[in-house]
Amino acid sequence: MRFVQFRLLKDTIKATRIGLQKKSGGIVDLSDVLPNCHSIVEALGKLGGNGLIKIAQTNLANKETSCSKVQLLAPITSPDKIFCIGLNYRDTCKELGFAPPDEPLVFSKFSNSITGPFDKIKHPDISKEVFWEAELAVVLGKKGKNIEASEAKDYVFGYTVANDLTALDWHKKNGGQWLLGKTMDGFCPIGPNILTADKVPDPHNLKISCSVNGQIKQTSNTNQLIHGVFDCISFLSKFCTLLPGDIILTGTPPGSGGFAKPPQFLQEGDVVECEIEQLGKIRNQIE
Amino acid sequence: MRFVQFRLLKDTIKATRIGLQKKSGGIVDLSDVLPNCHSIVEALGKLGGNGLIKIAQTNLANKETSCSKVQLLAPITSPDKIFCIGLNYRDTCKELGFAPPDEPLVFSKFSNSITGPFDKIKHPDISKEVFWEAELAVVLGKKGKNIEASEAKDYVFGYTVANDLTALDWHKKNGGQWLLGKTMDGFCPIGPNILTADKVPDPHNLKISCSVNGQIKQTSNTNQLIHGVFDCISFLSKFCTLLPGDIILTGTPPGSGGFAKPPQFLQEGDVVECEIEQLGKIRNQIE
Repeated sequence: MRFVQFRLLKDTIKATRIGLQKKSGGIVDLSDVLPNCHSIVEALGKLGGNGLIKIAQTNLANKETSCSKVQLLAPITSPDKIFCIGLNYRDTCKELGFAPPDEPLVFSKFSNSITGPFDKIKHPDISKEVFWEAELAVVLGKKGKNIEASEAKDYVFGYTVANDLTALDWHKKNGGQWLLGKTMDGFCPIGPNILTADKVPDPHNLKISCSVNGQIKQTSNTNQLIHGVFDCISFLSKFCTLLPGDIILTGTPPGSGGFAKPPQFLQEGDVVECEIEQLGKIRNQIE
Repeated sequence: MRFVQFRLLKDTIKATRIGLQKKSGGIVDLSDVLPNCHSIVEALGKLGGNGLIKIAQTNLANKETSCSKVQLLAPITSPDKIFCIGLNYRDTCKELGFAPPDEPLVFSKFSNSITGPFDKIKHPDISKEVFWEAELAVVLGKKGKNIEASEAKDYVFGYTVANDLTALDWHKKNGGQWLLGKTMDGFCPIGPNILTADKVPDPHNLKISCSVNGQIKQTSNTNQLIHGVFDCISFLSKFCTLLPGDIILTGTPPGSGGFAKPPQFLQEGDVVECEIEQLGKIRNQIE
């Protein structure tokens, strides 16, 4: 199943609704069968991933709304945590000349960075060095601490596509802490939907790519991940109690412009597309 | 006014309640007059700081519950963001031999780190180098972006005391990113209440101290802050849309054990107390 958050275009209040996107592209609206859940994060918190999936299953055949009548929103908004893993592709480490980290290298974004899969993103005034990073994002469906890697699969609700936008100039400043260069408003477009884990038999064998203005910049496969999805979940859970709705951006392949020679940065008008096999594509214009 | 979150000791469901702590120590329960607000963060989001204060004012004379019948909880739980400012005391920079940063040095914790003002804190198995950092914490009451420092005062709901616990061994690992060493479960005790901004005429002239097992380790004054409360708010708002309930830990005075020679780290059984003039004292035992 593909979970989405959306707005009905004719809805003047612009309420966020929860739905399922069918193969036809049509959306089954689940909002009425999820009372008091204003977001997928809230639904995951109240029902757990399995509970949410059960309710969705019993409503699969409900009436569909044409995708032309909706605006897709980020499928996760206001999660408790956005973890990001750095230097996590073998081919990226090779590109940058770094030894692969022994353990996941973890940093974070705040939820103000999240934006929709097709939203325009305002170029921040305070940076001249914004670049792209296509990433596989994992959405958690269950609370946990000290999770064994062998059991981590049970904690995954699903997968989605993210662009871990980065301002390199602020990456270098701020005493070497990456947070400010990572968490500007709009710096984490995600979507277009969350594909549930049961439909992704192997998250470590998915083609991943990024293009800017139609020109391919990144192309690789999640089989290049140094620390896989389940190892990352296990590692993070040693430090923090993980919550349903938490997301983990698992790192980016080579070709993010910041480390090109000469570096390549996004300008107003540029269109960035990030795509992962099975999961879909997000497309954001910088304005 | 002093806002608190608390539980009634006789309440077997252990529901979080919102209240005001009076001079007598008694608690006025505001939960019934704040329908659909399960936390101060939620109340700030729905009503704004001024709206919450107005409702509290009309209920100031309500019946008080003796403080012996309640457990005080962290006054902020599940905020959207916990910002932390590093190296922000002149006397700390002198202690460590660092030049004062030109701009606030920003890192973060996740909300799993928040714990109550008198809670025990489990020493994490994965660190042997945990130390204390007493800090003035600012609680925001209003949404904003690109806030001028001269207007930042309007965005402050109030002030509280925090201990920015840190695992130095993980501070050094993780590719130099501080996140993991800062955000372990229980690493951010706060409280005991939020003193509203109108009762703190000058947040930049408050005595601040920390003791471990009764022995003073840190003692200074917020007049040593390099980047003051309002400058920090203005700076952060250039990067992120700030939300009601967001908190900013403003940095720590000299004497946090990690940088002592030899370094001093917390052990099971140790009791850490952080105190700020007017705001009160938090007291946490490591277990």
